[in-house]
Amino acid sequence: MKLQVALDGDLASSRAILTQVHEFIDIAEIGTPLIYREGMNAVRILRADYPQLTLLADLKIMDAGEEEAAIAFEAGADIVTVLGVAHDNTVRGAVAAARQFGKQVLVDMLQVGDLAGRGLELLALGCDYLCIHTAYDLQHSGATPFAHLQHLREALPDGPLAVAGGVKPDTLDSLLVFKPEIVVVGGAISRAANPAEIARRMYERIHA
Amino acid sequence: MKLQVALDGDLASSRAILTQVHEFIDIAEIGTPLIYREGMNAVRILRADYPQLTLLADLKIMDAGEEEAAIAFEAGADIVTVLGVAHDNTVRGAVAAARQFGKQVLVDMLQVGDLAGRGLELLALGCDYLCIHTAYDLQHSGATPFAHLQHLREALPDGPLAVAGGVKPDTLDSLLVFKPEIVVVGGAISRAANPAEIARRMYERIHA
Repeated sequence: MKLQVALDGDLASSRAILTQVHEFIDIAEIGTPLIYREGMNAVRILRADYPQLTLLADLKIMDAGEEEAAIAFEAGADIVTVLGVAHDNTVRGAVAAARQFGKQVLVDMLQVGDLAGRGLELLALGCDYLCIHTAYDLQHSGATPFAHLQHLREALPDGPLAVAGGVKPDTLDSLLVFKPEIVVVGGAISRAANPAEIARRMYERIHA
Repeated sequence: MKLQVALDGDLASSRAILTQVHEFIDIAEIGTPLIYREGMNAVRILRADYPQLTLLADLKIMDAGEEEAAIAFEAGADIVTVLGVAHDNTVRGAVAAARQFGKQVLVDMLQVGDLAGRGLELLALGCDYLCIHTAYDLQHSGATPFAHLQHLREALPDGPLAVAGGVKPDTLDSLLVFKPEIVVVGGAISRAANPAEIARRMYERIHA
């Protein structure tokens, strides 16, 4: 299992957070808002800062899969995200770019209705991870990824799953039961009073 | 009706195209790949180049609607795109940001199953335009937006529609029958031997 921290602020604050937490994470996510703000400059700078760190570019690709994934891989990303609701051709394109660069595709399952059925299709298309994601825009109404993760794990006992959306230290154990490959943590680390301490605790729990 | 040119290359080529076509377009689209490459720097530079031109930032928002739309409006965009497959809360957020800035939201209907039903919901949520969009990843198999545009126009006789995806000078007339508010043209202008000539012809036809 791996700990991924999502960086959704501006570039300066994201670099400051990484300075504090980089020892205690496996993957740094250049979040969608950070990409909107800075473009691939954010990927290139974090790649230069941390040559060995796995970087995920949260493009949430919806069209032009091969061309858009290549933009992030060329900039230095190791993993690119595509939306599970995208057309199969778009998914195929993103996977083709990943194979060409020797990199990976994570599918964001936001708004996918049939998680198990679509999940099987996406794995057959060559995607590397399926990410159960409770939208930021649903978290304030108390939604969590727990039930969807449980459902997809039951359908895919050995599937490479990831989980994102409001994950906190005190909800971590309830998710680890379902053995996700990647646990994505955003504000619980990036907006913590002491990001390093929270990241270290979650990292140690995940790697225990 | 308005002519929108989609700029999907790098910033230098996009500026070069705009130099040639800005007199013959109503809206310049900062395309998703250009945003991935350059971030909001592309919006700020084109805004400085053309203070009066309507700029659309093709973010294809899927989550964090209010926060992500605000990033583009603050940078100088007049219209931001949200995906029709996004959750209602995300659409509401993007619309709230648009109202706060006195700007607009265009919905990209990519992968929406029930175009008429979802279209009515999206208009009720306050979206300004519904864009029938044939994915780039489907165009090489001959798909066009014609049938979907016809279907949505029949369902919404007065709805504010837009159309995108492989629109060319010789397919323009077949789309204008359905009275879209916005016609989006990409490669037919940006990859033309003479972009200004193609843009002028399409602009004159649209405004005839």
